[in-house]
Amino acid sequence: MLIVQKFGGSSVADAQKMMRVAGIIADTKRAGNDVVVVLSAQGDTTDDLLDKAAEINPNASKRELDMLLTTGEQISIALCAMALETMDVPAVSLTGWQVGMRTSSDFGNARIKTMDTARIRDELDAGKVVIVAGFQGVNKNDEITTLGRGGSDTTAVAIAARLHADLCQIYTDVEGVYTADPRIVPQARKLDEITYDEMLELASMGAQVLHNRSVEMAKRYNVNMEVLSSYVRKSGTIVREVVKKMEETKVSGVAKDEKIARIALVGLNDVPGVAFKVFRVLAKEKINVDIILQSIGRGDTKDISFTVSKSDMDRAVTALEAAKDTIGFDHITVSDKVAKISVVGAGMINSPGVAVQMFEALYNAHVNIHMISTSEIKISVLIDSAQADVAMRAVHEAFFGE
Amino acid sequence: MLIVQKFGGSSVADAQKMMRVAGIIADTKRAGNDVVVVLSAQGDTTDDLLDKAAEINPNASKRELDMLLTTGEQISIALCAMALETMDVPAVSLTGWQVGMRTSSDFGNARIKTMDTARIRDELDAGKVVIVAGFQGVNKNDEITTLGRGGSDTTAVAIAARLHADLCQIYTDVEGVYTADPRIVPQARKLDEITYDEMLELASMGAQVLHNRSVEMAKRYNVNMEVLSSYVRKSGTIVREVVKKMEETKVSGVAKDEKIARIALVGLNDVPGVAFKVFRVLAKEKINVDIILQSIGRGDTKDISFTVSKSDMDRAVTALEAAKDTIGFDHITVSDKVAKISVVGAGMINSPGVAVQMFEALYNAHVNIHMISTSEIKISVLIDSAQADVAMRAVHEAFFGE
Repeated sequence: MLIVQKFGGSSVADAQKMMRVAGIIADTKRAGNDVVVVLSAQGDTTDDLLDKAAEINPNASKRELDMLLTTGEQISIALCAMALETMDVPAVSLTGWQVGMRTSSDFGNARIKTMDTARIRDELDAGKVVIVAGFQGVNKNDEITTLGRGGSDTTAVAIAARLHADLCQIYTDVEGVYTADPRIVPQARKLDEITYDEMLELASMGAQVLHNRSVEMAKRYNVNMEVLSSYVRKSGTIVREVVKKMEETKVSGVAKDEKIARIALVGLNDVPGVAFKVFRVLAKEKINVDIILQSIGRGDTKDISFTVSKSDMDRAVTALEAAKDTIGFDHITVSDKVAKISVVGAGMINSPGVAVQMFEALYNAHVNIHMISTSEIKISVLIDSAQADVAMRAVHEAFFGE
Repeated sequence: MLIVQKFGGSSVADAQKMMRVAGIIADTKRAGNDVVVVLSAQGDTTDDLLDKAAEINPNASKRELDMLLTTGEQISIALCAMALETMDVPAVSLTGWQVGMRTSSDFGNARIKTMDTARIRDELDAGKVVIVAGFQGVNKNDEITTLGRGGSDTTAVAIAARLHADLCQIYTDVEGVYTADPRIVPQARKLDEITYDEMLELASMGAQVLHNRSVEMAKRYNVNMEVLSSYVRKSGTIVREVVKKMEETKVSGVAKDEKIARIALVGLNDVPGVAFKVFRVLAKEKINVDIILQSIGRGDTKDISFTVSKSDMDRAVTALEAAKDTIGFDHITVSDKVAKISVVGAGMINSPGVAVQMFEALYNAHVNIHMISTSEIKISVLIDSAQADVAMRAVHEAFFGE
């Protein structure tokens, strides 16, 4: 098999952890597989480099920040190759430009455009483990770029896609994808398999196991991913297009997102185009809006509520206040004491009962629902954040209880 | 003017020092010059990286060590570009491969083979200060290499040569080249100018201001170098082919080297080929020999004494003992309590009096001479290391005293 293995920064944070990671790689290689490894920067390296930059220039150009930050992954790959050398496993480390990882020119947030495979293929054919620096590439002018958040996962999936790898393993500090966060719901179970779409919904719900970007790419190129732990030697959760389910579970997981805020515009004129005016203001500010709820008009006014990321709340309010005359509303109310609880499952498309089951569980737990949003494979409700953990456990029990 | 400025690791060790260096660069640029900057890794960065490697693999491959170590210079150049951004000086940092610095494949000690100038020229034409990572390059297979000791100086001279720069400034923590080490000889004077050959002799004598490799390249391509301090804004010492001397001084400087050891083979057979046998053994071990002295045969035996670098002493003795039967000698004596004092000066070629003047000064200071070696522009003597400083001051006084 050809296997791509990605290890995050915490998995390679020090010499001891690097040796453990090298042990996993060595075992995979010795089992007869071809292995390509993708690494992030060690532990706090990236933050340390950012501190160095901030000390000199808090507004450093993104071009030079990328030049600086990409050294972090380069350090990791060299050390990993050295670790494999001690185990007599032939290995070679390669930077983003050495593997021909071509990206757009958006420094700090570049997109992968193409990738050469010749160099990696040659090294694999020579019997070596190939260790690639994640998160980085070069644009068409040979400028060094970084891929932004989730970049190393994306590097791994891109390589797996181009090499038609049999599996892309993403090693993390959890054992896989769970039906809910085990720190909140002790009864949470690890899933053996999950579909790309379910994973995407869970990731965007705050279950930060995989970044959406890498899952989207895996879905597009049909790359089988596995999420597993670098601390225990156990199989994890496979992410793929179609999942064979032993029992026809409708729901794959329950997720919570507390990094959101609710904004309500009260007393809007009940005339055509008012929603357009509201969300145009937010779009201009590049603020993403999640759940939207519009009240039925009472007389000549209505209300619009919506959720935004907590970090965007103040900017959203400022922008809306500035456009108050254009939009036409009475006042704004804001709350950041809210949480979103979601159930995700590809099986719920044909099961209208899932929503009812969820609402019943929340009712039994005395949880009040402020807003509701649904998609084909997801139902989300907005509730008070104080009730978030109670709500999660109640919903999880409803779907996964004995 | 087109000026190449090289700053060593101690000059850029922290944010404050980096800002001072950026100030020097900005002033040079604002004075109307085109500026290319070459940087080493910050302060202890290289040692820290080596520690990281040693913790994982004390015998790491040179290929992976080069992958690791080159991040140090990359961090420096990014931070320097950020520092110049705060001064509104347009700047761009470039790694070794980005400037097309092609080297041999000797990882850890590569030689520069060719260099593209297109990228640097384009950036200079765009009005930018170009900041290049010293010490690094890529071989013909795009593998990252390092140039070994003195690598950043060599990078600077290579760039100056290829760009036909008007001047290559090497910034250090001393103000220039002195007639002797000021820490030993308080009367030492800074030289305004010195020839390449004199600089080469001084450098090999232990005056570690410039590495021979960079001076040799500067001589070959006729690059004017200047050695100056990054801490004081003063002109330093110019190194060039022909020096206009106001006063016809014969001697440019006095240097001391204590990192040597003397080895003597006693009771060699006085037959042809014995010297060849001795030095073939050392050449096989890649041990450089400096001063050689052969006694006149007494009866059927003679002695050969020579000096080697102190770090090679034990290996040299082991190798010679192993070849004792082949060579044929009675025993070996060794001393590492010796020092070499040298006077260097292009003017001494036509002045046989220099040697006499030196020997007289040593005689008056009661310094006993063990060995003597001369070249066209240098006279070296081997003495007891306990007398080294006394000898230096005496010789310096003889040539530079009032």
